[in-house]
Amino acid sequence: MHSFIELSKIFEEKFNTRHFPLHTATLYNPAQYILQLGGKRIRPVSVLMGNELFDEIHEDAYHAAIGIELFHNFSLIHDDIMDKAPVRRGMATVHAKYGEPTALLAGDVMLVMAYEYLNKMKIGHLQKVLQLFNNTAKAVCEGQQLDMDFENIETVTLEQYVHMITLKTSVLLAASLQVGAILGGTGERNQHHIYEFGKDLGIAFQLQDDYLDAFGDPEKFGKQVGGDILANKKTFLMIRALEVADAKAQKELQHLMMSNPTDKVARVLDIFRQCNVDSWAKQLKEKYMATAMYHLEEVAVTEKRKLPLKELAYFLIERDK
Amino acid sequence: MHSFIELSKIFEEKFNTRHFPLHTATLYNPAQYILQLGGKRIRPVSVLMGNELFDEIHEDAYHAAIGIELFHNFSLIHDDIMDKAPVRRGMATVHAKYGEPTALLAGDVMLVMAYEYLNKMKIGHLQKVLQLFNNTAKAVCEGQQLDMDFENIETVTLEQYVHMITLKTSVLLAASLQVGAILGGTGERNQHHIYEFGKDLGIAFQLQDDYLDAFGDPEKFGKQVGGDILANKKTFLMIRALEVADAKAQKELQHLMMSNPTDKVARVLDIFRQCNVDSWAKQLKEKYMATAMYHLEEVAVTEKRKLPLKELAYFLIERDK
Repeated sequence: MHSFIELSKIFEEKFNTRHFPLHTATLYNPAQYILQLGGKRIRPVSVLMGNELFDEIHEDAYHAAIGIELFHNFSLIHDDIMDKAPVRRGMATVHAKYGEPTALLAGDVMLVMAYEYLNKMKIGHLQKVLQLFNNTAKAVCEGQQLDMDFENIETVTLEQYVHMITLKTSVLLAASLQVGAILGGTGERNQHHIYEFGKDLGIAFQLQDDYLDAFGDPEKFGKQVGGDILANKKTFLMIRALEVADAKAQKELQHLMMSNPTDKVARVLDIFRQCNVDSWAKQLKEKYMATAMYHLEEVAVTEKRKLPLKELAYFLIERDK
Repeated sequence: MHSFIELSKIFEEKFNTRHFPLHTATLYNPAQYILQLGGKRIRPVSVLMGNELFDEIHEDAYHAAIGIELFHNFSLIHDDIMDKAPVRRGMATVHAKYGEPTALLAGDVMLVMAYEYLNKMKIGHLQKVLQLFNNTAKAVCEGQQLDMDFENIETVTLEQYVHMITLKTSVLLAASLQVGAILGGTGERNQHHIYEFGKDLGIAFQLQDDYLDAFGDPEKFGKQVGGDILANKKTFLMIRALEVADAKAQKELQHLMMSNPTDKVARVLDIFRQCNVDSWAKQLKEKYMATAMYHLEEVAVTEKRKLPLKELAYFLIERDK
């Protein structure tokens, strides 16, 4: 058994190489660029952890892990185009550096290469893993579309937001764990619980993400703090604030979301604090965390084997970047 | 054995249905939209023909054919975004109708669904077909990138253009035929020759495409005639004209490519005609056609089985739309 940190190092050693052909460089260099920006590699490491929860790590787990990390980076490149985001991990986004057409295409080729890595798996695992992967990839696209749709509707409920986030973020973490579990040779019941663990953990993860976007330390966070506020994103915090703020604060929030004063971020944060959305977000995060932990408990292996996943869970929801 | 037309009808009946879930409609309706615009369905029918060259059509051939047609439409959606093309098959392009972010995402989800259809194949064919498909998909992306790169370099040689077109257009036709051949159960040698047949035919096809863009009948063509000229594309015709025109005509061509007079298309076409690029293009097309036919001859099956592919070849290079 390995800890989360150990598996991260093992994965990084395998992953820290050029994954793309040298030619056509104008296409593949932009694809390689985003991989070099780093990242927490949570999803691929989750594949390894899902595998090791049940058995020794299978060689196929590394292929699947790389495939899933490439998929994740494909989605980042395309999301950044759609969101017109200039910065990712403290550096220029792919489209900001190389132009939108090339970034679009670099994302496409990265998605194809994700499938190329999955196709390195032994035939016994291939069809089942591909099915899960395809369903997940569709869900991620649906989630991104809903996220964009939400920009154009006035009120988004907490339930709608959780549904969108589940698709856009959680299912990929859940599927990463389940792919590992499949490769670890376990049955449907354990696969179900590890998937659900990942799904609830993913929502808690997003709560932390939304929290950090508003209340994070700018030096640690890597992204623009208040970016969601400037983009008028209906995050967990904003949805809650719009629900519980008094009439005056609600009106101000709505006004701020339709304008761009220079002190917009500070004023929205003031209202967030008045409404105690920060402590509310922490409580909601604990709730999802508890459900996640219930599903982990239900996985029929010894307690000891679950320790690295618990470690991962606490890392994800207590991180400051 | 079926003719090209018969197989087109058989495929169209299977394909003419909604391929996407009803929800999330804002994502899947734009994806369905482009499929309803029609098209010649050359690639999926080529899968069926490649199969039937060797054996009865396998059920998997329909899954593969649909997968390849979805892939082709994914590439059209994204190419149209990159090229800022307003019209496709006489109708608004996906991004013109639904906006770029949604079109980008609809393309992504269509690529995922292409893999979903491929994954319906029986396990015995899956890994080999996926490998060919992935290599082809990467090549198509590389070809599109080279096409964009060519916009920013002054001189593109005929050799460079043929290389780009091979990647962007030919290999998908070649791979469609080879996928069919794999499903038809033939060996490597026949697979090689049917692939090469498709590759040369694909180049002849592009020659016809470039020809029609300049000299086609606007009512039949469906796209804007002269679109390549207005976009300053270095097509077969333009590359040849820049090579053989006299100094005065060359200077005028270069001037026209850097400006946008209202009579640009007419003036470029005049120079094309002066340089006889129309008859040159026809001859070059015949040359590629002859090589394609050589490879078809080399396929070790009876002459009679090859007739539908010959029919396809002549259809493709003599079409007027």
